[in-house]
Amino acid sequence: MSCFSQAEADRMTGPVADVDLGCHLFRRLHEIGFDGRGMTRPSYGREENLAHALFMEVAAQYGLEVRRDWASNLYLTLPGRDRTLSVVMTGSHLDTVPCGGNFDGAAGAVAGLLVLCAWAKAGFRPERDTTLIVTRAEESVWFPLSYLGSRTAFGLLESSALETPRSDDGLSLRYHMQDCGASPDLCGKAPVLDAAKIDCFVELHIEQGPVLLEADVPVGIVTGICGSTRYRSAVIHGQYAHSGATPRCFRSDAVMAGASMMTALHDAWIKAEAQGEEMTLTFGVCRTDETQANFAAVAGRLELVIDIRSRDEALLERMNGLVIEQALRVERDHHVRVELGPRTRSAPAVMDAALQADARTLAASLDIPFVSMASGAGHDAATFAMQGVPTEMLFVRNRNGSHNPDESMEMDDFMQGVRLLEHLLRKRAGSET
Amino acid sequence: MSCFSQAEADRMTGPVADVDLGCHLFRRLHEIGFDGRGMTRPSYGREENLAHALFMEVAAQYGLEVRRDWASNLYLTLPGRDRTLSVVMTGSHLDTVPCGGNFDGAAGAVAGLLVLCAWAKAGFRPERDTTLIVTRAEESVWFPLSYLGSRTAFGLLESSALETPRSDDGLSLRYHMQDCGASPDLCGKAPVLDAAKIDCFVELHIEQGPVLLEADVPVGIVTGICGSTRYRSAVIHGQYAHSGATPRCFRSDAVMAGASMMTALHDAWIKAEAQGEEMTLTFGVCRTDETQANFAAVAGRLELVIDIRSRDEALLERMNGLVIEQALRVERDHHVRVELGPRTRSAPAVMDAALQADARTLAASLDIPFVSMASGAGHDAATFAMQGVPTEMLFVRNRNGSHNPDESMEMDDFMQGVRLLEHLLRKRAGSET
Repeated sequence: MSCFSQAEADRMTGPVADVDLGCHLFRRLHEIGFDGRGMTRPSYGREENLAHALFMEVAAQYGLEVRRDWASNLYLTLPGRDRTLSVVMTGSHLDTVPCGGNFDGAAGAVAGLLVLCAWAKAGFRPERDTTLIVTRAEESVWFPLSYLGSRTAFGLLESSALETPRSDDGLSLRYHMQDCGASPDLCGKAPVLDAAKIDCFVELHIEQGPVLLEADVPVGIVTGICGSTRYRSAVIHGQYAHSGATPRCFRSDAVMAGASMMTALHDAWIKAEAQGEEMTLTFGVCRTDETQANFAAVAGRLELVIDIRSRDEALLERMNGLVIEQALRVERDHHVRVELGPRTRSAPAVMDAALQADARTLAASLDIPFVSMASGAGHDAATFAMQGVPTEMLFVRNRNGSHNPDESMEMDDFMQGVRLLEHLLRKRAGSET
Repeated sequence: MSCFSQAEADRMTGPVADVDLGCHLFRRLHEIGFDGRGMTRPSYGREENLAHALFMEVAAQYGLEVRRDWASNLYLTLPGRDRTLSVVMTGSHLDTVPCGGNFDGAAGAVAGLLVLCAWAKAGFRPERDTTLIVTRAEESVWFPLSYLGSRTAFGLLESSALETPRSDDGLSLRYHMQDCGASPDLCGKAPVLDAAKIDCFVELHIEQGPVLLEADVPVGIVTGICGSTRYRSAVIHGQYAHSGATPRCFRSDAVMAGASMMTALHDAWIKAEAQGEEMTLTFGVCRTDETQANFAAVAGRLELVIDIRSRDEALLERMNGLVIEQALRVERDHHVRVELGPRTRSAPAVMDAALQADARTLAASLDIPFVSMASGAGHDAATFAMQGVPTEMLFVRNRNGSHNPDESMEMDDFMQGVRLLEHLLRKRAGSET
C-alpha cells in the first residue's frame, strides 16, 4: 500500500535503467581486470585507466558531458535546465584491491552511468546538472591514504603524499599519477570540487558484509560510515633462536608476543560489544619472515597489520590507547620490541538525515525491501560528508563479502538499488519540466 | 687438584689437536657455504658435497681411511691395532639450515677430524678402529625427516621417504641423492652400521641456546636429547571478508583463531614449567597468504608450524593432546577449520651413564669447567642412542644460538671441547701400546 498520491505515483514511473547495458559494463570491467583468479585494477594503474576509458566511451555515446580533472578523476554530466544551480552527484570508483571482486566500487559507478544514460535516452532533462564522478584510487591497499581520489578533488591531499610508494612496485604516487596522464604538481593547489556547489552526493555500493543476506533484503540505507585507526606496518622485533635449545626465559619470541597482543585486543573487542559498543578489529596480515623463519627457530620478526573501525570516535581513541598499552605489555612479558609504525586514521561520517528519510520513503513506495545500517567500510562518500555535502549511501546485497574474487551480486538486487538511486537522484535534481 | 694418579696424569698428555688446522677447516667451510649473509649448505646439495670433499682431502693427507656409504655418509677411520674389535665413533654433519651459521654440525665434524689427524700425526695407534662419521642431511628443514643421514646408515629409512620433496625446490630426496652420487634404491635394504659393532658414539656440538653462556663455562656434558612432536604444515582455513563490514559473529578469522590457539598452548607451557616439567613450545612460522591477505580483509588462511620438544615422552603426548583439543576449540569459537597436517616425531634419547661419568671425571682432571645439561635440540647422536649404542654428547659454548648467521663460538672454547673429546675417545679406543 503506497502512501503516495496518484500524482506522486505517476512521477515515479520515469526513465528505466537498461539492465543489458549494466551487464555489458560489468562484463567489460571483468575483462579489463581479470588476473587469472580475481580482479586486479590497481590505483592509478593501467587497468583503472582502461575502466575509465570504457566509461568515457559509453558516456560519449549517450551524449553526456565528459570531463576529467588534473588528478584524472572522471566527471560524466547530464546538463540541467539551470546550470547555475548546485549539482546533484553520484559516484564511486573502479580500482580494486589485488585479486578482488568485480562489484566493489564498480557497482556504484555502473549504477550512476545507467541512471544518466537512461535519462539521456529518455530525453529527460533535470533542473540541476547531475554528475557521475568516477574517482581514482579509493582502495587504500595500494597507497596507504584514505579516499585519495575524492580528497584530491576537494584539494585535501597534501603534496607530501605524492612520494608515497605504491604497495606492489614501490614506485611513488607521483610516478603513477604521471603515468596515467595526471598532473600531480597541482596537488593541494587546485581544488576541483566546491562543497557549496554540490546539492548532494549519493553513492551506491555493494554491501561488503553479510547483513543484508542475513536480513534477506536487497537494499540497505546507510546511516553512517565508520572511521578507522590503523597501523599498517607494525613489526614485532624478537630474536631468532634455536627452538629446542632456548629456554622460555631466554626467548624473545615475536610470534608469541604477537599472539598474546592480538588475543588481548580481541578480548577487549568482545567486552566492548557486550557493553553495546560497535566496532571491528582485524589483523589482516600477520607474517613471519619468508627467508629466516623456519620450524626449528623461535621467530625473530613478525609483521602485523592492525585495523580498527567504528562510528564512535571516542571508542576508536580508547582502542588505540589499548593497542599502545598492549604493545608495552608484550615488550615486557616477551622481551621483544614492538614498532607500531605510522598510524593512519579516518574520521567517522554521518549520512544526511533528509536524504535518508527520502530514501526510506521512496524504497517503501517502490516496494523495495530495505534495512537501515551502518557502513563498516570507508567510502568516498565519507569525503563528501566531511566537506558538508548532504550525503547518502545505498547498499546492495552481495554474497561472500568483498575484497575477494567471490563477490557475488545478483543483477536483480542491483537493478532494485539502481531504481532507488534513480528516484532519489531525480527527486533532488528536479524532475518538473 | 686432580684426583688421578701420576700414571693416569701422564696418560693424559697425548697427541695435541692442531688449532691452525681447525681454523683452516672453518674458514674453508665458510667459503663453501656463504650465501651473502649466512651459511647455506642444503642437505644433499652442492655445498654439502663440497664440504664433504674438503674433509676427504684432509683425511687423505693424514693417511686416514676414507670411505663413503651408498647414501654418501662419509667415514674417516684411523685403523686400530685390533680391527676385529667394535669401533669407537665420533661425528656430526656439514649441512646447515638456510642462512644458518658456520658451527652447527661443522664443529663436531671438525673436532673429530682434528682428533684423528692429531693421532695420525703423532703416530698414535689406538686399540680399536676410531671413525669419524660425517653424516648427510641432519637439518630437517630441507626434508621433514629427523636424522636422515644417520638413520639411513642404520637402514632405518623407509624407501617411501625417497619421494619427500626438498623444501627449497620441491625436488625429491631421491632426485637430490642421485644428484650427489648416492644410490637411493638401496634405501631400507642395506644397513651400513651395526650397533653391535660400535663401542660408543660421541658427538661434539655447539650449544644452541644460552645456558653455557649464562653459566659462564665452556663445555656442557649432555644428559639426554629431547624428543619432539611437530606439525610442520598446519593451516587454519577461515574466510576472507571485509575488515570493516563483517561483524564479529559472521567472521571466520584465521589469524584470530591462530592467536587464540597459540596463546592457550603457551599458557599450558607456563603451567607445565611451574610444575617442574621441562619442554619447549615454538611457532617458528606463522603467516598469512602473500597474495590475498591485506589490511582491509579478515584473513582467510594462516599457516602455522608447531614444534614441541621434551625429554619426557609422556609430556610430549599430553601436549599433543592439547594441540588437538585447542584446534577443536578454535574451530568452534572462530568458525574456522584447522588442518594440523601430518605429525612428525622423534623420541627422546638417554645418554650413556658410563660415558657421562667418564666425561665428567676427565673434564675435572683437565681443569675444564663444565655443567651437565639436556639437549633441547635433536642430533644424530639420538639415532645411535636409540640403536643401543652407548652414546654421549659434548656441548661447546656459543653466542647467539644457532640456525642463524650470528652463531659465534670462540676457538678457545672449541679447543677445550676438542681436548675433552680427544681424551674421552682415547679412553674408549684404548691408548695402551
